[in-house]
Amino acid sequence: MRIVVLAGGIGGSRFLLGVRAEAGRDSQQNGDSAEPVTAIINTADDVTLHGLRICPDLDSVMYTLGAGIDPERGWGRAKETWTVKDELAAYGAEPTWFGLGDRDIATHLIRTRMLDAGYPLSAVTEALGERWRPGVKVLPMTDDRVETHVVVADDDKGTNRRAMHFQEWWIRHHAELRAEKFVPTGAEDASAAPGVVAAIAAADVVLIAPSNPVVSIGTILSIDQIRTALAQTSAPVIGLSPIIGGAAVRGMAEKCLPVIGAEVSAAGVARLYGARRDGGLLDGWLVDETDAGTSVDGIEVRAVPLWMTDVDTTAAMARAALDVAQEVGKRA
Amino acid sequence: MRIVVLAGGIGGSRFLLGVRAEAGRDSQQNGDSAEPVTAIINTADDVTLHGLRICPDLDSVMYTLGAGIDPERGWGRAKETWTVKDELAAYGAEPTWFGLGDRDIATHLIRTRMLDAGYPLSAVTEALGERWRPGVKVLPMTDDRVETHVVVADDDKGTNRRAMHFQEWWIRHHAELRAEKFVPTGAEDASAAPGVVAAIAAADVVLIAPSNPVVSIGTILSIDQIRTALAQTSAPVIGLSPIIGGAAVRGMAEKCLPVIGAEVSAAGVARLYGARRDGGLLDGWLVDETDAGTSVDGIEVRAVPLWMTDVDTTAAMARAALDVAQEVGKRA
Repeated sequence: MRIVVLAGGIGGSRFLLGVRAEAGRDSQQNGDSAEPVTAIINTADDVTLHGLRICPDLDSVMYTLGAGIDPERGWGRAKETWTVKDELAAYGAEPTWFGLGDRDIATHLIRTRMLDAGYPLSAVTEALGERWRPGVKVLPMTDDRVETHVVVADDDKGTNRRAMHFQEWWIRHHAELRAEKFVPTGAEDASAAPGVVAAIAAADVVLIAPSNPVVSIGTILSIDQIRTALAQTSAPVIGLSPIIGGAAVRGMAEKCLPVIGAEVSAAGVARLYGARRDGGLLDGWLVDETDAGTSVDGIEVRAVPLWMTDVDTTAAMARAALDVAQEVGKRA
Repeated sequence: MRIVVLAGGIGGSRFLLGVRAEAGRDSQQNGDSAEPVTAIINTADDVTLHGLRICPDLDSVMYTLGAGIDPERGWGRAKETWTVKDELAAYGAEPTWFGLGDRDIATHLIRTRMLDAGYPLSAVTEALGERWRPGVKVLPMTDDRVETHVVVADDDKGTNRRAMHFQEWWIRHHAELRAEKFVPTGAEDASAAPGVVAAIAAADVVLIAPSNPVVSIGTILSIDQIRTALAQTSAPVIGLSPIIGGAAVRGMAEKCLPVIGAEVSAAGVARLYGARRDGGLLDGWLVDETDAGTSVDGIEVRAVPLWMTDVDTTAAMARAALDVAQEVGKRA
């Protein structure tokens, strides 16, 4: 069973833990050699700070699947220290608001050095993966530079506008500045990274992780080649709602959805993604039991527990998604 | 009194502590406003590792004068940690032999970023100095890239040769590979950094720190403009021997001197530098009391205690050098 997952950072990482577990169980039961899961990861949160190229979502995925993540914080390395960050601040070097851990910096140094030497991000990601052995094929959505910028109102009347990097809006300003627009800068000219289109074309199922539908999944979908591949694949596309009972499970999806005029609800996200038969993304959609009764035209909706409390419950979510895929697949 | 000091890293830093103290005392006694001491620092040990531009001598000087140095190790920051270094090694990223501390890395990140942005090393050094306030005008010998490479015999018979960066020879191989030659790569085309020639021209005295005469002072002298400025200045040039009783006080001068055919002795180093009246560097030369009786044609030699055990003894060395300068100055 060839599973492709589109995912962002923290939520996506946790979901991938469940998918990996379920895929392993599945291949054992069927006596298959395990096809690695392919994870296509948002890179539009990437940012260069202090000369270091930082890929928050790729790193969250790599550290989580490689058991290097700080499980409580949900991002960055376990047993992290912050010496370099403190020293940079002592020099007055801006910015000081980004959580740049010492262990993490080693990753960024290697990545920056490889990128400067001309390696594409996908090759860097593979090289870093040799240490972390994520057990999942981790692909950046693109090797090109795409960065989400946020247009915010700059005064009380909202007559002046300025743009800032998503990380600045998210981390420095805690998403408290009124956003008017998210712009995935560079997406128009970006190609899918090597392997991405082929993986989607060859997939038995495509899962949309319960990640931020605007700035994680939304930016992955802003790459033309990926959107086209998803429209053309024969694999069913099944999503999992990041919204449970009207609030984001994690992260700030509820701050992002209204900006693009989408409803903060499980149904709202499904409608944002759209039904595949109408030119949208989804064949199936999992909502939490809290949202049982949700229905969206043209999409097979199923209510199951969607809290990723541990690997077992998350694997059960993945199982439920695969089951929906099988059903809609049969019907097709 | 305008004092210019040519210096390398660890020994040079300690010497500068003494010079700074003595210069301060001197200006107080004479009611002068304190002219800052100008230190011209070797940059040929500089190296780029893991994408970071590292300037060991400039950093030793900056940290020592700014009270940030590890006083026991003599290089790098006090209370240093090594998390990034360990993580880079866990990735298998080479090289692993360089002492890259976490606190130190902040310095290198800022320097690398500024250099990448087009600032010359002298401007970077000044910017970093805003934090450390060394109380001395610290100038790199050049803004151009000069790196000492070491040609070593690569087999027992010494028939094959290879070149490596000085840091690799010094730190990785503990200077144990038989060196045949030191090459200050890039020195031929290098200009003195802004302010260097003017400082030498305007100096009342030029002091040569008891630094490695081959790879620290020697490389500073390998810059044409600096050698010419020293030949032309009206200021007396007084050196302090880094060799006491036939052994280097610190560092590995005794490994470097024989490579260039110089004698490992206080007199040997003086002869290497040469008498100014014969087209060499020195008007005066301080040797340790152990080496009393040393004489070198054309150079005023004086024996005084040369162990830099604390700032007071080091300031007394500086005082003795200034006294010799005054004497040879009068005679001229």
